[in-house]
Amino acid sequence: MVKKSQKYDSGCPIAYGLDVFGDQWSLLIIRDMALKGARTYGEFLEGWEGISTNILANRLKHLEDTGLITRERDPDNWRSYIYELTPKGRDLAPVIAEIILWSGKYNTAEHAMPEAVEKVRRDRQGFEDKVRNGDIP
Amino acid sequence: MVKKSQKYDSGCPIAYGLDVFGDQWSLLIIRDMALKGARTYGEFLEGWEGISTNILANRLKHLEDTGLITRERDPDNWRSYIYELTPKGRDLAPVIAEIILWSGKYNTAEHAMPEAVEKVRRDRQGFEDKVRNGDIP
Repeated sequence: MVKKSQKYDSGCPIAYGLDVFGDQWSLLIIRDMALKGARTYGEFLEGWEGISTNILANRLKHLEDTGLITRERDPDNWRSYIYELTPKGRDLAPVIAEIILWSGKYNTAEHAMPEAVEKVRRDRQGFEDKVRNGDIP
Repeated sequence: MVKKSQKYDSGCPIAYGLDVFGDQWSLLIIRDMALKGARTYGEFLEGWEGISTNILANRLKHLEDTGLITRERDPDNWRSYIYELTPKGRDLAPVIAEIILWSGKYNTAEHAMPEAVEKVRRDRQGFEDKVRNGDIP
């Protein structure tokens, strides 16, 4: 925790951002919420990269504590929760867009999802607006 | 490593980007190279957030393996190395710019470096161009 507080204390805007969403799993959870409409624990577990339940619980707590997501009881299922991105979380849309464009330029993997990259290349503003409005881009 | 290869295999552009630079320390090393002109092991160790030597060595190797930085013998000191960002590394400039703008909006810390944020707000394209050209923005 010392390192973490040191990192926060530097005041650097990049260090602050990375403290909030910089680990891989946090941003992949945000991706599943913003781009795939995932809102429940079960939907996060179905993510492409196979997050484990303990990492998922840890990251959801962190994202809630840092104000990127909210957690509400599911009115249709009292024992489960619905997670939603906050405006602070949705405002990561331009960061996500730039990561997609960068990867589209450099990821040579066969399954690099060119259609996802093309969607942002074709209409970046529309992509960001949809994420900010809570629509699936 | 299974998780890592699963993550790469998803082909998702965000997962690819995070595999390359998604951990906090990797992007802070890139920050020190792009924004502070750090080029040597000693200069990286002087970074604001206090990276440890073993994490630094690990991340430098990873950034070299993924093609974001190069490592050359220092002509003036045969026993040490000079690290430089590649075009692939410098092309992270827009990602860095968006992280800075997002943090500028949400980091309420006293030492949040508003001047660094203002520099990107005032001339984002100039900031990106400088990083791409290897100049200190």
